[in-house]
Amino acid sequence: MEELVVDRGAEAEARRVAILGLGLMGCSLGLALNRSGAALQVTGYDPDPAVLQEARRLGAIGAAAASPAEAVREADLVVLAAPVTAFPSLFHELGPGLSPRAVVSDLGSVKRSVLAAASALPRPSRFIGGHPLAGRERSGPAAADADLFAGRSWAVVPPPGAAVEAVERVLWLVRSVGAVPLVLDAEEHDRIVAAISHLPQLAAYALATAVLESAGDGATEVDKARRLAGTGFRDTTRLAASNPGLWRDLALANRDHLLAGMERLRAQLDRLAEALAAGDGSRLESLFASAREARLRLGEASPSDPARKG
Amino acid sequence: MEELVVDRGAEAEARRVAILGLGLMGCSLGLALNRSGAALQVTGYDPDPAVLQEARRLGAIGAAAASPAEAVREADLVVLAAPVTAFPSLFHELGPGLSPRAVVSDLGSVKRSVLAAASALPRPSRFIGGHPLAGRERSGPAAADADLFAGRSWAVVPPPGAAVEAVERVLWLVRSVGAVPLVLDAEEHDRIVAAISHLPQLAAYALATAVLESAGDGATEVDKARRLAGTGFRDTTRLAASNPGLWRDLALANRDHLLAGMERLRAQLDRLAEALAAGDGSRLESLFASAREARLRLGEASPSDPARKG
Repeated sequence: MEELVVDRGAEAEARRVAILGLGLMGCSLGLALNRSGAALQVTGYDPDPAVLQEARRLGAIGAAAASPAEAVREADLVVLAAPVTAFPSLFHELGPGLSPRAVVSDLGSVKRSVLAAASALPRPSRFIGGHPLAGRERSGPAAADADLFAGRSWAVVPPPGAAVEAVERVLWLVRSVGAVPLVLDAEEHDRIVAAISHLPQLAAYALATAVLESAGDGATEVDKARRLAGTGFRDTTRLAASNPGLWRDLALANRDHLLAGMERLRAQLDRLAEALAAGDGSRLESLFASAREARLRLGEASPSDPARKG
Repeated sequence: MEELVVDRGAEAEARRVAILGLGLMGCSLGLALNRSGAALQVTGYDPDPAVLQEARRLGAIGAAAASPAEAVREADLVVLAAPVTAFPSLFHELGPGLSPRAVVSDLGSVKRSVLAAASALPRPSRFIGGHPLAGRERSGPAAADADLFAGRSWAVVPPPGAAVEAVERVLWLVRSVGAVPLVLDAEEHDRIVAAISHLPQLAAYALATAVLESAGDGATEVDKARRLAGTGFRDTTRLAASNPGLWRDLALANRDHLLAGMERLRAQLDRLAEALAAGDGSRLESLFASAREARLRLGEASPSDPARKG
């Protein structure tokens, strides 16, 4: 599937795009699409009327729809940018109104559960999962950025038996906003994403709590710790500022892979603590050196490493 | 001790500064001092002749000494910028040649063991520990930067019974290079630094290894993981690229506090894994929310948060 070669014909392009959910991701997608001039029309829907209005004011969408069914009525490409827990009811609601030629995609961080839910659509072979590897701690339309996807990887996850032109249209979307597509199947996607995204997220949450417990949580102690905290602390725990509700859903949706990763992390901490407690410097250094090697292998130049976001 | 008010008289200033050890930290200190014009002369020593020559070429030191004893002979202020494991022999070697009025300080990340070793000096009340909260993954003179300390916190750790003018001279040094001093005792310093620096470091090492194990370490798998890795992975594991030998020594020197911190981290991971395994979304969200709160309390605006270093 990775070797899939696509011909970017006019067939692949979408004249009318609908975006469902207009938070940071949905609005950034709209801004990027509008700037590229790739689509004729971008219609949006959000259950929060204030968000919908803000998205229109910012130019993230050209038209605001009153319901998901209305938003998708004329769309060639529908992109779900809502929380993944909302997908089953959205599929139910928009399915009957979809044009037979419409392609549906999403921006969710897990893919097995999303593809399973998409099987309720009238034409599941035209649902192609998507996952842009981009995000921020901040949320909402005001944090949106037309450059959010530029140079970033974007996983494209077709179901077994996917319609080729549906894959092509999603690849068109990805390239239209400047991202770099990587085609994967859902199982592989969820396993890798558990490793490189969900596990670091849970580690950051655990670390932030453990650091506060260790520094002491009185006001004076916190003040001193804050003054002594350098970029090391800030970088390792930055993810802990992320939205708890969003991560609850993602963690539960990728539970098996994530639990296996946490077990590996726990085992590695045990090895380090054991060497440290025994005062075994050479063992400690060798564990550190392996970790350094792992980091260098995983962290080399990547399409998704532009200027760091603060 | 934090309320210590110092009068920055001429007595506090150092005409002649000696820097022992000319890697990233020692050279950055020399560059910053020379740029400030605060000292008349900066003399340096490094056991590696190539490093010594490079430091002189870069302008980090004005004169190169052939031995620690020669470097300190005329110094008002001696700064140890070598690995902390080298301190006992350095104290032994330079002690006899120190002027009675000289003040000695250091740049090490642990302070109890350093103050204990400094008790071998002829005048231990004139040794004032120092720890600038600044650093990089890269090392050596070529990575040095006159701005490394600008706006960063710098822990100043006097021993019990410290000479007041010795503390003043170290505060002069800290301010001369644009850093912000924070006076602490050694026990408090080591406890807080274990929490906000050493624990994140070991967590980053453990996480980098666990991520590679979880992603799979075949070349194809690593390539995909690398392409899907975003800033979250990179930030949480950036510290794992640090020098294993240096961190072996620091971890061993702060073993008790660090082991206690690691135990708290493991307990927190266990709580998260338990809630996740049980599918207990509300417990998971509440643990995430507490972690977020901890991160926000520890990560608010700080003197040591200038532009992020890549």
